[in-house]
Amino acid sequence: MSRPPLRPRAHYRHWHRIDTRFGDNDAFGHVNNAVYYAWYDTALNSFLLGAGLYQIGQTPGGGSDAIAYIAESSCRYVSALRYPGMVEIGLSLERFGQSSLSWHLGAFAEHAQMPSAEGRIVQVCISRRTERPIPIPAPWRSTITERAMHPDGVQEKADIPWS
Amino acid sequence: MSRPPLRPRAHYRHWHRIDTRFGDNDAFGHVNNAVYYAWYDTALNSFLLGAGLYQIGQTPGGGSDAIAYIAESSCRYVSALRYPGMVEIGLSLERFGQSSLSWHLGAFAEHAQMPSAEGRIVQVCISRRTERPIPIPAPWRSTITERAMHPDGVQEKADIPWS
Amino acid sequence: MSRPPLRPRAHYRHWHRIDTRFGDNDAFGHVNNAVYYAWYDTALNSFLLGAGLYQIGQTPGGGSDAIAYIAESSCRYVSALRYPGMVEIGLSLERFGQSSLSWHLGAFAEHAQMPSAEGRIVQVCISRRTERPIPIPAPWRSTITERAMHPDGVQEKADIPWS
Amino acid sequence: MSRPPLRPRAHYRHWHRIDTRFGDNDAFGHVNNAVYYAWYDTALNSFLLGAGLYQIGQTPGGGSDAIAYIAESSCRYVSALRYPGMVEIGLSLERFGQSSLSWHLGAFAEHAQMPSAEGRIVQVCISRRTERPIPIPAPWRSTITERAMHPDGVQEKADIPWS
Repeated sequence: MSRPPLRPRAHYRHWHRIDTRFGDNDAFGHVNNAVYYAWYDTALNSFLLGAGLYQIGQTPGGGSDAIAYIAESSCRYVSALRYPGMVEIGLSLERFGQSSLSWHLGAFAEHAQMPSAEGRIVQVCISRRTERPIPIPAPWRSTITERAMHPDGVQEKADIPWS
Repeated sequence: MSRPPLRPRAHYRHWHRIDTRFGDNDAFGHVNNAVYYAWYDTALNSFLLGAGLYQIGQTPGGGSDAIAYIAESSCRYVSALRYPGMVEIGLSLERFGQSSLSWHLGAFAEHAQMPSAEGRIVQVCISRRTERPIPIPAPWRSTITERAMHPDGVQEKADIPWS
Repeated sequence: MSRPPLRPRAHYRHWHRIDTRFGDNDAFGHVNNAVYYAWYDTALNSFLLGAGLYQIGQTPGGGSDAIAYIAESSCRYVSALRYPGMVEIGLSLERFGQSSLSWHLGAFAEHAQMPSAEGRIVQVCISRRTERPIPIPAPWRSTITERAMHPDGVQEKADIPWS
Repeated sequence: MSRPPLRPRAHYRHWHRIDTRFGDNDAFGHVNNAVYYAWYDTALNSFLLGAGLYQIGQTPGGGSDAIAYIAESSCRYVSALRYPGMVEIGLSLERFGQSSLSWHLGAFAEHAQMPSAEGRIVQVCISRRTERPIPIPAPWRSTITERAMHPDGVQEKADIPWS
């Protein structure tokens, strides 16, 4: 039984640089495992917000109706990262379903060719009003395809089942 | 020049127990300074929510209109707290202004008579709709006076200036 | 293609109650996805510390030499949890390798029979001095088997490959 | 009674840019009050580490013996900051005691002339081995004086009393 090889830098189509924080390190002296998800989350939302695909909203009832919730996440930790320093988060879309988006993410030390950690996040498009899944809006599909989809990424009608 | 004496347990009128988390400890091996404010925030909001004075709201535009923002906060760290373990947060209202509430808070190790840290938080009542200060709602004033005001607490017409 | 059914309460052998915090809720009004991992981490470490299997150490060079790092983690989010309220984290050991431990975790709202989220964490035993994997210490194996191993849990000589 | 005027950009001698994170925003839609302290902490430690004044240490017992603990902190919140976006943290040393350092900090939106929040942190130099205060090391005093001390900053023999 063996693990799939790590995905190198070239796998990723969009990058988000993130500053580590003093509090990211835990009692074992390196970045706590939960912090990687805060980075992934930030990288993904920064891409979607930067592309104009949704707005958070600053007042009650403000913001766009279509947003994305996280339905699944996973991370494989390969080597420790530590504050201080910058981390580069790579992302690429692996798969569109009807409502769902599966992303690959990698956390790289600056200039490193191989990741310190890599993960996968499945988002589901949701109407903020109804809190129910909706088909991926057309502008999401076209913009993400253009800017962040991996060449081997797939578009499918069906969703990965999620609850 | 000397510092005011620490406030003992008897100073506080309402208590909130909080579980420390593994990630609360930082690279120096004790709870990070910023975490105390997350505890204070949680203790205060839990008191206000538990007393039915406001609702967070789960949908856009939901929740009560009157909420409280934090205008000032401070903390004096006396002795280190560490995960694992429970912490007891004491709170008592020190002063009502027209829109503002000044709270004393203390972070105590279980069974300790003297605090490991003590702080002060000034909240300002805000209309969520306008994001502007509003007079403290009458039910806030009466409920807090009854359940959490220190015997030496004061009620004043004027606010501590805040911006 | 279908997903495995959710694991009910009865699947878990050890429980850790955790207090939600005001800051756990994110801009979408429910607990942020990364926070579940902070809960899992806390539940696991509290079990291991409570069973006397390792010590964090409060001074440089203090604490036990054998600790556990997280090599992999994953979470499936089923329904939103929100501050305020308590969450109950269930855990049970699914598999021992030579150096690795695979855990099932579930995040349950109080009194709920089915989880709001469920996850899996693979830990690897490490010597803090060398930062290299070591065989699971005998007291870990016996104590965890007794207190937290699932009846269908397996003991294998080989590790799940991890990097 | 009136509050002191806010300190403008020109007050600060050293700057640290920090990336906001999705999880920095709380249920009220702006950065949570506790997060500002995580930023201040990061800005201060990044300055001290970048100047070579201390090392965190990556192994048990590693790192420098002289480190700084936070004895007091405070913050005045003036206008809301929100993810996404960069924040600029300014810092300048206000006062040296025998063991203590008092810092002014300001959190500025990019390009803003006036701060969204401003704070004060008192650090105390500690021996990591004994966990007791020690006189500020000479290289700290000279480097900080040169790179981050405010022209009106003072050097005093006595410490602000701290416990």
